[in-house]
Amino acid sequence: MRNLKIMGCANALPGKKMMFKDQTRYRLEEGETLLDLCDVAVQNALEDAGITIKDIDCIIGGMATPLQLIPCNAALIHERVAKGLEIPAMDINTTCTSFVSAMDMASYLIDAGRYEKILIVSGDCASAALNPNQQESYELFSDAVSAFVVGKSEADAGVLYAAQKTWSEGAHDTEIRGGGGLQTAFLFTEENKEDYYFDMKGVKVLKLTAKKLPGLLKDTLLKAQLSLDDIDVIVPHQASKALDMIIPHLGLQNKQYINCVKEYGNMVSASIPFTLCNAIHENKVCKGDTVMLFGTAAGLTSNILIFKY
Amino acid sequence: MRNLKIMGCANALPGKKMMFKDQTRYRLEEGETLLDLCDVAVQNALEDAGITIKDIDCIIGGMATPLQLIPCNAALIHERVAKGLEIPAMDINTTCTSFVSAMDMASYLIDAGRYEKILIVSGDCASAALNPNQQESYELFSDAVSAFVVGKSEADAGVLYAAQKTWSEGAHDTEIRGGGGLQTAFLFTEENKEDYYFDMKGVKVLKLTAKKLPGLLKDTLLKAQLSLDDIDVIVPHQASKALDMIIPHLGLQNKQYINCVKEYGNMVSASIPFTLCNAIHENKVCKGDTVMLFGTAAGLTSNILIFKY
Repeated sequence: MRNLKIMGCANALPGKKMMFKDQTRYRLEEGETLLDLCDVAVQNALEDAGITIKDIDCIIGGMATPLQLIPCNAALIHERVAKGLEIPAMDINTTCTSFVSAMDMASYLIDAGRYEKILIVSGDCASAALNPNQQESYELFSDAVSAFVVGKSEADAGVLYAAQKTWSEGAHDTEIRGGGGLQTAFLFTEENKEDYYFDMKGVKVLKLTAKKLPGLLKDTLLKAQLSLDDIDVIVPHQASKALDMIIPHLGLQNKQYINCVKEYGNMVSASIPFTLCNAIHENKVCKGDTVMLFGTAAGLTSNILIFKY
Repeated sequence: MRNLKIMGCANALPGKKMMFKDQTRYRLEEGETLLDLCDVAVQNALEDAGITIKDIDCIIGGMATPLQLIPCNAALIHERVAKGLEIPAMDINTTCTSFVSAMDMASYLIDAGRYEKILIVSGDCASAALNPNQQESYELFSDAVSAFVVGKSEADAGVLYAAQKTWSEGAHDTEIRGGGGLQTAFLFTEENKEDYYFDMKGVKVLKLTAKKLPGLLKDTLLKAQLSLDDIDVIVPHQASKALDMIIPHLGLQNKQYINCVKEYGNMVSASIPFTLCNAIHENKVCKGDTVMLFGTAAGLTSNILIFKY
C-alpha cells in the first residue's frame, strides 16, 4: 500500500443551471471562468483540510483540456491561489481520468517522502467546446471543478492498487481535433468549425469500453489480490446515462456504486473527484472503507484505483 | 537515489532548415506533422535501447503544448507507435521542462516497481504559434522531437535529486493565451490574432530567472548533499542566446555545460532531452557521470534534476 490520506476536498459549480428533460446540467455564465471555480474549490478544500495554501508542497492540475496552450493549467491555478509562493505546479493528463492518474502519481510522491501535502485540481470548461448539433454530448456535459488535498497518513490509509491501460484504436472516438498544434486556431473557418467542437462517437466508445473494461477490472482485482467483496464503495466516472447499463456488464450490480449523472452530468475530469468528494461529505465513504475509482477516458484510456480511506 | 537507467534515446528534426544570420533553426515542412517526428524518434530510440515497443510499460508525453485539445498527446503518439497494444499513455506538463518532470516522475514509477520500461516523448510544434511580428521569439525556436527509453538499472544509476519551483508572478511572461478553454478558437478574429500567437516577454523572463534560479540551484545542491565539483556535465534548457550570460550568474562558468542554441535554437520541451541525447551519443556524457539537467519554463517554472548515468 502506498501511503496517502485524503485530508480534505471541495467542489465548485458554475452559476448557470440548465435542464434537459429530467437531467440537470451546469454551465459557466457570462463573465465566469473555470479559474473562478478553481479558486472557490481550492479555498474550500484547504478549509476542509484545516490547512492554508502555504502548507501545500505541490499543485497538480489533473485536467482533460488546456485553459491556455501555454503555460500549463497548474501554473494558472497557482497564479490564482498561490501567487507569491514557489509551490511547484504540474499538469498530469489522461483526459477524463486525469484525477485518478494525479492521485496515483501523488501516492508515489507522498509515499517516497518527496512531498507531504499535494493539492489536486480537476475540472474542465466543457461548454466551451460543446457542439449544439450533437444532441447527445450537448445535453450530457457540465462545467465543474473539484479540488482535493492529499497528504501523508499516520493511520492505515493509502492506495492499495492502481492500473491504467490505453487502447488507441479509440483515439478518435472522443476528441477535439482543432485548437492544438495539429490544427491551430489560425486555421479555423466556418467550414471546418466542427473540428473545433467536442466530437464524441458515443456508441463506439461504449462498445470499446464494454469490450475492454471487464478484462481490466478482473485483472486488476487479481493483481491487487482483492475480491469484489473487499470493495465497500465504487465511484465510477459519470460518463453517460449508460452507466447503469455498464455496471451489470462488469458484474458490479450488487455493489454500492454512485450514479449522479441525472444531477450533474458528465463533468469531464471533475466527474470522479466531484462524486468522491460528495460521497465523503455525505458519509457514503467512511474511514477504513475500501474505495474503487474507475473510468474510461478519451484515448481510449481506462484507469482503476483502489484505496483505503 | 531512485533507480533509473537511460536505455536509449533518439532525436528527430523536421525537413525545413532556416538560417537567421548564423543561427540554424528547423521547422515542419508542408505536409509534415509533429507526430511524424514522434514516430521517427520513438522507432530510433527503441532501436538504440535494443527493444521493441512491446517491451514498453508506459508512454509519457512530456510536452509543453497539446497536439489536439482532446485526447492527450501520449494517446495520439500511442496511436502512431503502439496501436493494438494496451500500454498506458499519460501526459506530464511543466511546459519547457516537461521532459525533466517526466523523467522525475518516471524514476518513482521505476524505483517502486510499477513499470520496468517507460518511453518519454518530448517535443512541440513551435512554428504553429510563432508570431512573425515578434522577431526575438520568431528567430529563436525550432520544431523537434526527442524520445527516451528509461528503465530499471542493475548498476548504480538513477536520480540523485530533483527539485521544481513555480513562481506564478511570471505566468503571463511566456504564454499562448488563446486556443484553450479560456479563449477558444471560436473567438479567433483578425483583431485578437495576437492572443493566439506565442508571446514571450524575453527581458522579464530573464530577470525573473536571474532572480530566482541561483537560490534554487544553491538550495538543491545543499539538499542533495552535493557540491558543484560532483557534477560532471550540465545540460541546460536551450532557452535563448542569453544562456552564456546566465551560466556565470549561476556560478557555473567553469563547469562543462552544453550550449547548442546556435545549431538548433530553443526546441521547447525537446530542448533538454535533445541536447542530452546528442551528448550521450557524442560521449560527452559517459557511464558513471553525474549529470545535471536544469531549465526554466513558462509558469514561471524551474526544474533541476541530478542523475547518475
